Amino acid sequence: MSDSSSPTIGVFDSGFGGLTVLRALISRLPGASYAFLGDTARLPYGSKSRRTIARYAAESARFLVNDQGARFLVIACNTASALALDAIQDAVSVPVLGVIEPGASAARAASRSGDVLVIATDATVHSHAYFTACQAKGLRALEKACPLLVPLVEEGWTSHPVTEQVIRIYLDELNTRAAHDGLHPDTLVLGCTHYPLLRPLIEHAVSAGMRVIDSAESTADAAVHLINGNASTRVDPPDAAEAEVRCFATDSVDKFERLGSRFLGRPVGTVELIDLGG
Amino acid sequence: MSDSSSPTIGVFDSGFGGLTVLRALISRLPGASYAFLGDTARLPYGSKSRRTIARYAAESARFLVNDQGARFLVIACNTASALALDAIQDAVSVPVLGVIEPGASAARAASRSGDVLVIATDATVHSHAYFTACQAKGLRALEKACPLLVPLVEEGWTSHPVTEQVIRIYLDELNTRAAHDGLHPDTLVLGCTHYPLLRPLIEHAVSAGMRVIDSAESTADAAVHLINGNASTRVDPPDAAEAEVRCFATDSVDKFERLGSRFLGRPVGTVELIDLGG
Repeated sequence: MSDSSSPTIGVFDSGFGGLTVLRALISRLPGASYAFLGDTARLPYGSKSRRTIARYAAESARFLVNDQGARFLVIACNTASALALDAIQDAVSVPVLGVIEPGASAARAASRSGDVLVIATDATVHSHAYFTACQAKGLRALEKACPLLVPLVEEGWTSHPVTEQVIRIYLDELNTRAAHDGLHPDTLVLGCTHYPLLRPLIEHAVSAGMRVIDSAESTADAAVHLINGNASTRVDPPDAAEAEVRCFATDSVDKFERLGSRFLGRPVGTVELIDLGG
Repeated sequence: MSDSSSPTIGVFDSGFGGLTVLRALISRLPGASYAFLGDTARLPYGSKSRRTIARYAAESARFLVNDQGARFLVIACNTASALALDAIQDAVSVPVLGVIEPGASAARAASRSGDVLVIATDATVHSHAYFTACQAKGLRALEKACPLLVPLVEEGWTSHPVTEQVIRIYLDELNTRAAHDGLHPDTLVLGCTHYPLLRPLIEHAVSAGMRVIDSAESTADAAVHLINGNASTRVDPPDAAEAEVRCFATDSVDKFERLGSRFLGRPVGTVELIDLGG
């Protein structure tokens, strides 16, 4: 719970990849307090039905708002953003922002050709959430599932030659498909919260002139705009050196604590285990 | 449900990797009927508590025995074998066989030095189930988690140069640790139901003289011994060309149907969706 001068921003993910979004938020708003919840007991959301995901995400959102006093909620989870944003907005009375819309908006601002590439997990690609969000902005988006990238990041191989090869293989396949479809992409959206850790390798692998959009950064930019545009959530400049961060998980605290700091860019500290039910 | 002359063998996994065990069973007992259940809605079991896994596995076992008439149950899931074999045996009245004990027995029969290597998922290694089962047989076992191998198999890269490199890296790390610990391993246990698909690459990568134990094959051998040693389950020689196989899943039928045939070595056909609850 934060004191009244420093509003708490709630950040939610099914796992801990969303810590990259939290990191981007902290760098922009170091004066806020943060509560992060990873619903690790019930991941992966990607293989579950929309109704189940909506129920899980709503329960998680209520925990952050009702129990942790969050006055603004960032859904740092692509699957929940794609399938449950409405359900979350219905469940809580604070503003809610997902990761997909800001990623698509940043792509719209970056692209001149109007053709963009999106790499993401199987579940996110299957939902076509980025395709739909991009299409609504007049962009043609070609999506590709890159299922090896999350395990490579979690193995810690973020600057490993094997990961470099895998990225090249995926991007080659995507570029071949784009050429076949007559697209001229100039922008690549990283549509997964794990991928910011691969950004240096990905930027090295893309064609010359390709803009890389990190949806964690884009989401943090959009959140700051909304948070500071509202008197009830505005964050004052910090009077402490470091933002206050509390992390919660519904299971697998070990893995969260072991891997989380790589995503957050600083120690996650003790992760508190909570029970949201089956 | 099978006819009375052809007993049904139930095979259970949290996902569909256990289809490699089913494949090994079919090749040995083509005259039996089979019911395979993948509890895909609730995977991964590896990150869940023992009590939760026991409940899920017992529910799944009851479905195979009570609803599908299985007269013998193979738990083709390392996590459930490690953490819930007792609970499953309590839940049903038919013989139950897990994958770990047969793998450790085969390693005992194969090893001359008494030192064995085990590769498996994070969750299986964390349970130290193979270490414990090997130790009980007088073997020294060194276990290593190889978390990239399952996603590489699921990506279909079972004979890909990237997978070859990843296997070499993992085995090099394992051999370095073995040398450091003063072990002289001569046997490698594949302690994950996905790994049989990588067997050619793994056999190519191991040191000369190293025996590779496929726990799917070992489990099928042990199952045949138990099944044909019991009058109520004995399987007569087949009068049909192909074993009858029914596959069930609790979610993600798409992925099961798309990838399952690679594991089973023949089409899985239509996977029936069932609901075991939360």
